[in-house]
Amino acid sequence: MILYGYGLSSASYRVRIALALKKLPYTSITKNLRAGEHRLSDFLSINVQGFVPALGLDDGAVLTQSVAIMEYLDEIYPSPRLLPAEPLARARVRALTLAITSDLHPLNNLRVLRYLEDKLSLDKETRDAWYRHWVQVGFSALERWLVRDAATGRFCHGNSPTLADVCLVPQVFNARRFAVDMNPYPRIMAIDAACRELPEFQSTV
Amino acid sequence: MILYGYGLSSASYRVRIALALKKLPYTSITKNLRAGEHRLSDFLSINVQGFVPALGLDDGAVLTQSVAIMEYLDEIYPSPRLLPAEPLARARVRALTLAITSDLHPLNNLRVLRYLEDKLSLDKETRDAWYRHWVQVGFSALERWLVRDAATGRFCHGNSPTLADVCLVPQVFNARRFAVDMNPYPRIMAIDAACRELPEFQSTV
Repeated sequence: MILYGYGLSSASYRVRIALALKKLPYTSITKNLRAGEHRLSDFLSINVQGFVPALGLDDGAVLTQSVAIMEYLDEIYPSPRLLPAEPLARARVRALTLAITSDLHPLNNLRVLRYLEDKLSLDKETRDAWYRHWVQVGFSALERWLVRDAATGRFCHGNSPTLADVCLVPQVFNARRFAVDMNPYPRIMAIDAACRELPEFQSTV
Repeated sequence: MILYGYGLSSASYRVRIALALKKLPYTSITKNLRAGEHRLSDFLSINVQGFVPALGLDDGAVLTQSVAIMEYLDEIYPSPRLLPAEPLARARVRALTLAITSDLHPLNNLRVLRYLEDKLSLDKETRDAWYRHWVQVGFSALERWLVRDAATGRFCHGNSPTLADVCLVPQVFNARRFAVDMNPYPRIMAIDAACRELPEFQSTV
């Protein structure tokens, strides 16, 4: 398999963790987002959206969208499972996952921060406040949710990592990079720490 | 089942279509987003995120996040299927779905438009340009994608509606409401029209 990604892309980092947890070997091709390499026509023929990650399979098929890629990997390579077996538990893990990948991350990725800077001419302070606002809204709800259900285990759901943890760790990494104060989120920090004890989460930054 | 939703919420509209396609009866409870009803404590005890939709099951469990809700419904009530059976096809439908629900919709929903207005004091023209920009970026990529794979059928994938169509129609409805020019997207418009011939897509606005 070929993973088209970028070091600082949270969505690429998710897939790197998932591939590591499932011990799947792959070749890595970097698309430098800051240099605009993802918008070049050779890559647009691989992913019409021009986003990373994209995962090229051995038969030439290309998967896009990190969550769709990970759902596919979980269906084809079910060990270890990233989604629990029971439907209600699966729904909970997917909802936690989407609270990160659909509600939080899309507002703070590079193309949006660039729009704030280039099109709206907002200064750094205002852009940083935007970034922090959406992290705080997102993490506050997530913290209450994870505290309420803390009895389920050491991770977001149970005692082994799921799709939710695979998405949480890159988001926390990203928040720390932007110097967001993580102290209001002790449960998120504890889960992040539990994940980062595992080599699959460490080796993939 | 109880569906907590709001008429003009695209994410609620998705779940209404999915429930209609699967012919599942439910009680509807409206949370008026513009009046802030979703942020009141009684609803926060149902959904810690304070978002609609949320789906209360008959045993009291509550599901949140529209895509997670629909994945659950598809697992428990598989007829008609909203995701194809074959893993690569499932990955394609999920990727199309997420291109709408994670890349496009989150940037243009009410809380973001309000931030632009209240916190950044941007005028209506600038906010409308923001809205149109993300629709145009999202729909342009989606149009190329759907044209490239048009041989798959009348809908986003094949000849019956999938999760991707269920998410596309509310997004097109939303774009029209904001007077976005849809002429550059004939394939999206054709799929939207094919969907809206079906009563399940019509009756649920």
